[in-house]
Amino acid sequence: MSAHRTADLGFARLDLDRARRTGTPEVVYAAGKTPEQTVACLEALRDGGSALAWATRVDDATATAIQARWPDAVIDPEARCAFVGDLPAPVGSVLVLTAGTSDGAVAAEVAATLAAGGVGCRRVDDVGVAGVHRVLAVAPDIAEADVVVVVAGMDGALPSVVAGLTDRLVVAVPTSVGYGAAFEGQAALLTMLTACAPGVLVVNIDNGFGAGVAAARIARTAVR
Amino acid sequence: MSAHRTADLGFARLDLDRARRTGTPEVVYAAGKTPEQTVACLEALRDGGSALAWATRVDDATATAIQARWPDAVIDPEARCAFVGDLPAPVGSVLVLTAGTSDGAVAAEVAATLAAGGVGCRRVDDVGVAGVHRVLAVAPDIAEADVVVVVAGMDGALPSVVAGLTDRLVVAVPTSVGYGAAFEGQAALLTMLTACAPGVLVVNIDNGFGAGVAAARIARTAVR
Amino acid sequence: MSAHRTADLGFARLDLDRARRTGTPEVVYAAGKTPEQTVACLEALRDGGSALAWATRVDDATATAIQARWPDAVIDPEARCAFVGDLPAPVGSVLVLTAGTSDGAVAAEVAATLAAGGVGCRRVDDVGVAGVHRVLAVAPDIAEADVVVVVAGMDGALPSVVAGLTDRLVVAVPTSVGYGAAFEGQAALLTMLTACAPGVLVVNIDNGFGAGVAAARIARTAVR
Amino acid sequence: MSAHRTADLGFARLDLDRARRTGTPEVVYAAGKTPEQTVACLEALRDGGSALAWATRVDDATATAIQARWPDAVIDPEARCAFVGDLPAPVGSVLVLTAGTSDGAVAAEVAATLAAGGVGCRRVDDVGVAGVHRVLAVAPDIAEADVVVVVAGMDGALPSVVAGLTDRLVVAVPTSVGYGAAFEGQAALLTMLTACAPGVLVVNIDNGFGAGVAAARIARTAVR
Amino acid sequence: MSAHRTADLGFARLDLDRARRTGTPEVVYAAGKTPEQTVACLEALRDGGSALAWATRVDDATATAIQARWPDAVIDPEARCAFVGDLPAPVGSVLVLTAGTSDGAVAAEVAATLAAGGVGCRRVDDVGVAGVHRVLAVAPDIAEADVVVVVAGMDGALPSVVAGLTDRLVVAVPTSVGYGAAFEGQAALLTMLTACAPGVLVVNIDNGFGAGVAAARIARTAVR
Amino acid sequence: MSAHRTADLGFARLDLDRARRTGTPEVVYAAGKTPEQTVACLEALRDGGSALAWATRVDDATATAIQARWPDAVIDPEARCAFVGDLPAPVGSVLVLTAGTSDGAVAAEVAATLAAGGVGCRRVDDVGVAGVHRVLAVAPDIAEADVVVVVAGMDGALPSVVAGLTDRLVVAVPTSVGYGAAFEGQAALLTMLTACAPGVLVVNIDNGFGAGVAAARIARTAVR
Amino acid sequence: MSAHRTADLGFARLDLDRARRTGTPEVVYAAGKTPEQTVACLEALRDGGSALAWATRVDDATATAIQARWPDAVIDPEARCAFVGDLPAPVGSVLVLTAGTSDGAVAAEVAATLAAGGVGCRRVDDVGVAGVHRVLAVAPDIAEADVVVVVAGMDGALPSVVAGLTDRLVVAVPTSVGYGAAFEGQAALLTMLTACAPGVLVVNIDNGFGAGVAAARIARTAVR
Amino acid sequence: MSAHRTADLGFARLDLDRARRTGTPEVVYAAGKTPEQTVACLEALRDGGSALAWATRVDDATATAIQARWPDAVIDPEARCAFVGDLPAPVGSVLVLTAGTSDGAVAAEVAATLAAGGVGCRRVDDVGVAGVHRVLAVAPDIAEADVVVVVAGMDGALPSVVAGLTDRLVVAVPTSVGYGAAFEGQAALLTMLTACAPGVLVVNIDNGFGAGVAAARIARTAVR
Repeated sequence: MSAHRTADLGFARLDLDRARRTGTPEVVYAAGKTPEQTVACLEALRDGGSALAWATRVDDATATAIQARWPDAVIDPEARCAFVGDLPAPVGSVLVLTAGTSDGAVAAEVAATLAAGGVGCRRVDDVGVAGVHRVLAVAPDIAEADVVVVVAGMDGALPSVVAGLTDRLVVAVPTSVGYGAAFEGQAALLTMLTACAPGVLVVNIDNGFGAGVAAARIARTAVR
Repeated sequence: MSAHRTADLGFARLDLDRARRTGTPEVVYAAGKTPEQTVACLEALRDGGSALAWATRVDDATATAIQARWPDAVIDPEARCAFVGDLPAPVGSVLVLTAGTSDGAVAAEVAATLAAGGVGCRRVDDVGVAGVHRVLAVAPDIAEADVVVVVAGMDGALPSVVAGLTDRLVVAVPTSVGYGAAFEGQAALLTMLTACAPGVLVVNIDNGFGAGVAAARIARTAVR
Repeated sequence: MSAHRTADLGFARLDLDRARRTGTPEVVYAAGKTPEQTVACLEALRDGGSALAWATRVDDATATAIQARWPDAVIDPEARCAFVGDLPAPVGSVLVLTAGTSDGAVAAEVAATLAAGGVGCRRVDDVGVAGVHRVLAVAPDIAEADVVVVVAGMDGALPSVVAGLTDRLVVAVPTSVGYGAAFEGQAALLTMLTACAPGVLVVNIDNGFGAGVAAARIARTAVR
Repeated sequence: MSAHRTADLGFARLDLDRARRTGTPEVVYAAGKTPEQTVACLEALRDGGSALAWATRVDDATATAIQARWPDAVIDPEARCAFVGDLPAPVGSVLVLTAGTSDGAVAAEVAATLAAGGVGCRRVDDVGVAGVHRVLAVAPDIAEADVVVVVAGMDGALPSVVAGLTDRLVVAVPTSVGYGAAFEGQAALLTMLTACAPGVLVVNIDNGFGAGVAAARIARTAVR
Repeated sequence: MSAHRTADLGFARLDLDRARRTGTPEVVYAAGKTPEQTVACLEALRDGGSALAWATRVDDATATAIQARWPDAVIDPEARCAFVGDLPAPVGSVLVLTAGTSDGAVAAEVAATLAAGGVGCRRVDDVGVAGVHRVLAVAPDIAEADVVVVVAGMDGALPSVVAGLTDRLVVAVPTSVGYGAAFEGQAALLTMLTACAPGVLVVNIDNGFGAGVAAARIARTAVR
Repeated sequence: MSAHRTADLGFARLDLDRARRTGTPEVVYAAGKTPEQTVACLEALRDGGSALAWATRVDDATATAIQARWPDAVIDPEARCAFVGDLPAPVGSVLVLTAGTSDGAVAAEVAATLAAGGVGCRRVDDVGVAGVHRVLAVAPDIAEADVVVVVAGMDGALPSVVAGLTDRLVVAVPTSVGYGAAFEGQAALLTMLTACAPGVLVVNIDNGFGAGVAAARIARTAVR
Repeated sequence: MSAHRTADLGFARLDLDRARRTGTPEVVYAAGKTPEQTVACLEALRDGGSALAWATRVDDATATAIQARWPDAVIDPEARCAFVGDLPAPVGSVLVLTAGTSDGAVAAEVAATLAAGGVGCRRVDDVGVAGVHRVLAVAPDIAEADVVVVVAGMDGALPSVVAGLTDRLVVAVPTSVGYGAAFEGQAALLTMLTACAPGVLVVNIDNGFGAGVAAARIARTAVR
Repeated sequence: MSAHRTADLGFARLDLDRARRTGTPEVVYAAGKTPEQTVACLEALRDGGSALAWATRVDDATATAIQARWPDAVIDPEARCAFVGDLPAPVGSVLVLTAGTSDGAVAAEVAATLAAGGVGCRRVDDVGVAGVHRVLAVAPDIAEADVVVVVAGMDGALPSVVAGLTDRLVVAVPTSVGYGAAFEGQAALLTMLTACAPGVLVVNIDNGFGAGVAAARIARTAVR
């Protein structure tokens, strides 16, 4: 195994070669870190030579700390992401669908991750199966995409319907939207895992980042 | 409260007035009873004056015992139901949809319960959302029904789509069809409880009998 | 499939034909939306020609924003619902029972939904099975209703008892009232799904809206 | 702490003083033991001076082995219990109610345990809340009992209703009767733990033995 | 069934005959009620002739409202209970044990319920099985009690050990004390339900009131 | 929406255009179908013009029935799949890894699905993380693959390690291998959903078919 | 990382250096393997130079196949283990306690694993906390042990009591013994994880092998 | 059994002989206690002769109260522990690894417990399996340790990998780090319980104290 470059901050060991090894630069997961720790991680990634350093799950205090350090940092408040440096030029095309308005924050994290990964994205919101004509109306968008990401809470039924309409891969993201028997996203998660249409792959509840990384890998495959 | 007529068999107390009080004659739930106990219950209901006595969850041994006692009893092997006496003439119209072939036994129990309750029934199988055009194809059937019963396992997504197409009530029956994260019907149950379209009411997993009783009550309301 | 009229707000796509198609006008689910988003949705529904636009799960900030926009909007604080426009004249009769005082907010959402749907409602609170004579005392009310909605938390036992007294359909609403093994409404949900009396249909925990829509459909069936 | 007499069989250490210390003689739990082990345990208890040695969860092979060793042993096939020696004369009075016929085996284990403990028992079966008049009909039996044991599966609602009618303690036994969301007795267990009427205490699912021991202690308290 | 006296407050129907019928006066469960509702309930109970009216789960605002209405009301802050009127003179003797200091609030609710029910109580805290000699040290207290209530969180192992030492009934109360795999009291609940020693009966998690009512019934049985 | 060709067998409605619409021909899921039903479905697909008709979850009786009807059908006993007709020539390259020997049946279903879908496959078994050098040893295979499918039961840790070594997408398949806290595959499922390395997408427990369909779509993307 | 010797059987890759690397020779887990596969694995380990090759979870067919191949193989039927070759001479001392007779098979697997690992073992059965004097009676055995393994099902309370008596580490093994709320060992597992006494470490349900490996490592530490 | 010295504070009974009996002095678990109660407990332990009195789960208010009483008390804010008196000189060597930065607080509690128990500790953070070279890089540290403690949230996969590299015992601590299907640490807990490498023992979620006590016992064994 070849040598690995690591930035050791004591509380964190940043993997400076991850982009080279896995195609995805290391991201700073800001939840559970202090604003100072997140800034220090971003700084180390920049010092390690990353053209872009970025963080997810950024709360208001962390966003403020990042902008104090880098006035030209870009904060995406819906996605709760922060970017320091330059976004790569996008290639490929990912379609991101949400079942309802409340799923927007997770879809925004998908879109931010795609942007950070240099992949193009088109997003259409509120395409729930309770009005199945809305799903059929996006069939042309589906046909043009390299891969489709479907974000849905509550009953999580949208990926099953979308996957029956296309030969594209469907990346399904359950969200914690809903109450009672939605069980913080478990209902949607189980629905997606048991989708009666094949071609559906699933990530963790509310994991827009993971869906974005996966979709970017597939989209880059399509254009390479 | 007025007097109640009960047939006391020791191991069971049969409610001879239930049809008068609730519109649904008492049924014999044969699971957990010996063939002899089921026959004795049916006999007591007949002796109590019921034009029709019937049982659900009838296994082979019980079916044999019933036909030995009443050679003209009717056994429905798909529904695992047995009927002794005369089925009432049907009124009204209930549409029963299944998402897949494997949901057939539960749909058959719905149909048998409707027949016992004197309500008409039309059944269309294998209308899963993975081919949403199949769902749209039954829209005319839906429009003619008094109420729609939807039977589905795995992702349980069909009721959400159907309820978005109609002003009829949808009675959703989760089934234990599926494996892994289907968790013996829990995935479908949660999907149906959190259906994003209103107008969906839910019964227990595999409870075709309960769905049939409920649908019959609604259908009878529509024609009274 | 005929053309569909949709109001596209970017973050939401409102289904302007839902009332025509399903009998129930689209409602704005305010949880997970900003006050501004909820007001914009209500505005689009009004602009789309709805005589009544309304929202559920309305918190104080949203209620204030609605009344700032429409001074004659009606806020139901117990039900957390807001109405803009005219309520239809009620037909039919639904009986809403609660097992305890703490179930009141959910029952109020049932009643508000019935009002929005143009169906009459009578409500009796605190009819728990721990004093079964209280249940028997409402037998005359049950006999007069087109359908009975039963709202109960904790042990959720009330629907089983009510369903044994009537030939009306019982729509059961589990609530998150209780602690410990009530598990935020799961105990009541399971009790209702396994009710030993047939004729019980179940909605999601705390889903007064869903119960109201379903009860309205049945009641309208009865009077058509 | 005083000396303890123990019969050490290698695979089991029998507590010969348990009756003296806790009022309940040690019972042999035959599930998970070979017929030979169960017979050896009963023999050791007899050798240790017990007037009565008995076992629960006795399957057919074990019953045969016991009767081969003690031709006058009494086998209760419904309760799956075996008794070697003399049952004590009964004192006090426990009422055992079941919600349905299928709960009979557990109720029989309650009754067998009461008999082994020298306490009187009266049993009434199939008193489900779906016919609440059947519950009201046993009110006189309840009034005469020292304590009431209620055995119920499915929705497990019976203890809530019974406890509202009496100042006697209610010992509730959930059973694994039911399917789907009954979850092998979990639904009934949760219902009983969250019973809205006070005065209900709960044992493990299908634990007729535990309910019997507890009821016997209370009944003996009443007569001492 | 004889006539029932009920105080109908609209939001609540108070059962004025419950003490006569079940031996336990109705208590006001203040959680989920406004301070005004709780005061109104207490007032109705007093007006209905109760010598003592009391409430559980009383928060600070409710306690203040009660004392504003009845300056001589007694507030038990550890138990979060409030008493208006006279406590009955105690008879009998219940021993209340806690496994740890953090279980104190639940034990205090047990003791308050016993006081309201006219039963004597002795309480010993912090008798965990991690120092089993502490359990053995209370053996004399156990021997003198009519019934033992054991309150324990975390592993919930104390009732198993206590029940092995006595012929008294053990009422086990799991508490939500603990973290991680304690799962808000579920671990202790399951431990108590599966206690290897017979003679253990279980109430809901943190349900000191229910344990107190049950223990009072048993203790009153012992002295009648 | 264009016309859809469907073969209606009464108990099943086969989607003859699925291959055209989604790239994956409809497969017959033989679990829950009689041997006769499976044969009839395969026949209808052949009659509908499919060059290859195939079935999964084929038990011995069904395999016998298939070979009786088509003597040149190919049965894959490890994968429990049956093929009637010609397998397409493979393109692309998918690497299938298993964590242990017992995961072999699921991996075989992945491989069979890839073969049916016309995609090349290389399989390496028993690469568990308990010997991490075995994982490192397959790094060259990973580098040559278009996508990696990882099949693992018990702790399900293998996808996390593999995803950290590559820029290829990892399709993770939890299996029901293991006992106790493996909970029939739930432990592995949760591990994979929460994998600390991005680039992992998950299918249902034991769902080799779903993983194969998804991997085929990605591999075909790579070569188009 | 140094070179690794592996025996590649296709369906399995045996780690011939595991004993050198981790102190524990690779064991063949026979569940999920055919008798032929288990024999082949044992053969490969022997060929790889292991003085002892052994297998766990050996059923009757596998035991027969092993003895057919190696007539002097030793089968331990209680532990379901098979040994081919020579057991090492034991050092150190591990005490294995069981709470009940039914826990014997798991305790036997602990003992077999210790024997294979060259560590001495003393076993005492049926030391349940329902007779706490039985626990106190083994205090001298505990004092002499290097480490204590406690095997318990049902309430799983024994490790809490034992850990309070000693400064030795307690390795706790929950078993699937019990019914109802024992939930196949989950109740015991949670009890042990939340044990109120420190010094308790836990393995998977019924995992006697894992407990034996861990105890052997600690015991070897004590004597090195 | 010999006499036991106990400090009885009413709300707590402190076990002054625990260090003598179990090697670990009693610690004050401050969660669920008031600052005054925690100070009183520490005081009683000091008065009882402990050279060191200490507390875990110390919040800010409690830390302030402790320092007000003992100005030279040492507060470890990351571990949330407080020490009054002298730490013993360390012997032995425990390696503490964390999978990610967010696991730091739990690792700090492990380290504090080791310090209180007189055992040496080395800690390396952020050694996640997503960069498996980081794990291999600590192999020399692992080789020098008496025992390894691995702290990990999310997928909890690190202990499986570490245990495959060493003959040391691995004490695994799942943490509540993660979201969605991490289920507050349950995913990591199940992963560790089902680790495919033997030699892994598990404590409760976030239980750094328990892991520290266990590791200290093993380390002291190694040096005695």
